[in-house]
Amino acid sequence: MDIKVYMQSVGIAARAASRDLARASSDLKNNALIAIAKQLNSNRNAVLAANKVDMDNGRNNGLNDALLDRLKLNNARIDAMIEGLHQVAKLPDPVGELTDLGVRPSGIKLAKMRVPLGVIGIIYESRPNVTIDAASLCLKSGNATILRGGSEAIESNQAIASSISQGLIDAGLPDSAVQVINTTDRAAVGELITLTESVDVIVPRGGKGLIERVSADARVPVIKHLDGNCHVYIDDYAAIDKALAIADNAKTHRYGVCNAMESLLVAESVAAQVLPLIAKIYSEKAVEMRGCANSCNILPSISKACESDWSEEYLAPIVAIKVVAGIDEAIEHINHYSSQHTESIITEDQDRGLRFISEVDSSSVMINASTRFADGFEYGLGAEIGISTDKIHARGPVGLEGLTSQKWVVFGDGQIRQ
Amino acid sequence: MDIKVYMQSVGIAARAASRDLARASSDLKNNALIAIAKQLNSNRNAVLAANKVDMDNGRNNGLNDALLDRLKLNNARIDAMIEGLHQVAKLPDPVGELTDLGVRPSGIKLAKMRVPLGVIGIIYESRPNVTIDAASLCLKSGNATILRGGSEAIESNQAIASSISQGLIDAGLPDSAVQVINTTDRAAVGELITLTESVDVIVPRGGKGLIERVSADARVPVIKHLDGNCHVYIDDYAAIDKALAIADNAKTHRYGVCNAMESLLVAESVAAQVLPLIAKIYSEKAVEMRGCANSCNILPSISKACESDWSEEYLAPIVAIKVVAGIDEAIEHINHYSSQHTESIITEDQDRGLRFISEVDSSSVMINASTRFADGFEYGLGAEIGISTDKIHARGPVGLEGLTSQKWVVFGDGQIRQ
Repeated sequence: MDIKVYMQSVGIAARAASRDLARASSDLKNNALIAIAKQLNSNRNAVLAANKVDMDNGRNNGLNDALLDRLKLNNARIDAMIEGLHQVAKLPDPVGELTDLGVRPSGIKLAKMRVPLGVIGIIYESRPNVTIDAASLCLKSGNATILRGGSEAIESNQAIASSISQGLIDAGLPDSAVQVINTTDRAAVGELITLTESVDVIVPRGGKGLIERVSADARVPVIKHLDGNCHVYIDDYAAIDKALAIADNAKTHRYGVCNAMESLLVAESVAAQVLPLIAKIYSEKAVEMRGCANSCNILPSISKACESDWSEEYLAPIVAIKVVAGIDEAIEHINHYSSQHTESIITEDQDRGLRFISEVDSSSVMINASTRFADGFEYGLGAEIGISTDKIHARGPVGLEGLTSQKWVVFGDGQIRQ
Repeated sequence: MDIKVYMQSVGIAARAASRDLARASSDLKNNALIAIAKQLNSNRNAVLAANKVDMDNGRNNGLNDALLDRLKLNNARIDAMIEGLHQVAKLPDPVGELTDLGVRPSGIKLAKMRVPLGVIGIIYESRPNVTIDAASLCLKSGNATILRGGSEAIESNQAIASSISQGLIDAGLPDSAVQVINTTDRAAVGELITLTESVDVIVPRGGKGLIERVSADARVPVIKHLDGNCHVYIDDYAAIDKALAIADNAKTHRYGVCNAMESLLVAESVAAQVLPLIAKIYSEKAVEMRGCANSCNILPSISKACESDWSEEYLAPIVAIKVVAGIDEAIEHINHYSSQHTESIITEDQDRGLRFISEVDSSSVMINASTRFADGFEYGLGAEIGISTDKIHARGPVGLEGLTSQKWVVFGDGQIRQ
């Protein structure tokens, strides 16, 4: 089938299903999530067999071990998907909530009603569990979903798609409520991101390259997560024990995550005291340190940072270290180099803390806490579809509410405009 | 100067100014608004003289009377701009508001803080008062603004820009907080909408052609208002007096506005009773009626609607009329043809009213009220930069809050992630 025609038919079916989902009760959506979990459990062997095909093809095509590990499914990973479906079923349903109720001078009663966005397109890379994660969050928030996974995972994703379809039908929802694109043709992505009539928002999940490509060509609005170049700034008035614990945790708790600290800024007045203590911690954990000239004076054994280090998301045991004159330079440095993900100030001075959170232009700003807290679970959103580094619509961790919008509802009794 | 270099320098200056604006107090922003009003009052003669140049050029270039009227400034229109500045100064400042405060199990205190978007680009057509309207709303919400008006109004806009600059300086804010593009080169628009590093959002204000062009080429997110093809549906259970009053008001109160009704839907069971009464009202006001086959059977004197009438935003004394089987067909028709601006159901049946507001996918949905209420003033937003027909970020009338975002703020006491 012609790819344009195919994608248009997918879009039309999704739009139609979105009408059913918009009026679906919470119970109906939760039943569908549980029915999908049941189907996935029953179809476990078929999913594992399909995944074996993908793994074999991946090995033959020379995928590296890290990619193969992301692609691999086993019983434990399927159990985690099933558990995820049950967890999303337990989350509160944001749809239908009325807020800002009031009566206007004209006599009309006005409120905002939370509603699904409509149709959400998800473009992702090789991890097949995203198929279930993304579908479950979109379904719970009342949206129809079009999923386009990586070509390496096509067999796994199709097998998971069968369970989803069957679960939707079991619960009495149209199976086009969640559609998984059944072709590896890359033109499908180009079509999906320009289906302005049928798709309300695109969420790309994957590496920076994927997200930049999607953002550059999309005509549909994109909720995107670019990189996480997060900073910790140790202020003149920092409590040193907190500074050490947080600089350690933010860098070394997990290296490959977007909310890990990549650059450490230290106020000049405390640098000579703090940096040797931190360097000891990092050395013991084999974290490579790259410092500015002043840092290298204090820590002669570390290597020198170059300009590109300040912009880097290492996702690795490497940290860039810079001595700054004080809070002004720290804020300026962060607003210049940060990817606007998450930044933290360590200070006991309340005014400086408030200045930092007001003036640093990032999606999460913290006082005396590890940047590692910036995620949907720690923030109590229950689950997240991603962490947005955009400023409009959804900023920071995006949970169910980020997949909804608000419309205005007016209750009148015959009012006309004078 | 090379247009690319010029626009980049404008963007860099705006980003720098946005940092000052983000930390400006409400008093400082309000003082700036009032200082701009004073300057505009003092510079009245210069603004009128500049506008005369635009008007003369417009006449020589063959602008039609409607466009010339939009372009024209006089003392009354300058007074209105000054009054607008004072009104915006009186609006509550949304910036800094903390919501959703809570303590998480980890012990961190979490909240959302309302913050400016940063830099807003406004692209608009010939009405020079938009220069003041848009600048004042962006300034009050703490954003730096780059304004690009129509080439017909270049002299007027530059004269107004001088007053804005002087007012900003008088109040102690950088004059790059509001910049008016000083060239009519159309390439400036192309540069502005792709300045992803310096501009956070674009708001196009003008006709559908302008908005479609901007949306098609923008790389920066766009908050847009496309057309207003609004519907009133008279249900089987409508109170006839309310139905007549609202159908009259929604169509005839003002013709050239986006929240005017363009299509009237009537349930079959009441059509024979209601349509002749409505036709009488419309006939007396010389509103042209274009009906479906069933409407034409009831009203033999009206003309027949063709398919394109259902999608049309007439902005004129014309109405399309369709008899529908009932609420299901009404919702389906609206979701298919509407521009998702504003729709109203006339019914005394509460369940039907609630179904309509839940299932109709438009930015404003109403029960027993005129579509003419859909605007920022009637909704109590104080002022509006436009009415968004988008679903993400801001939907419906966009006031100061729509020009802001929320970031997450975390107050810790040394917490690290376990």
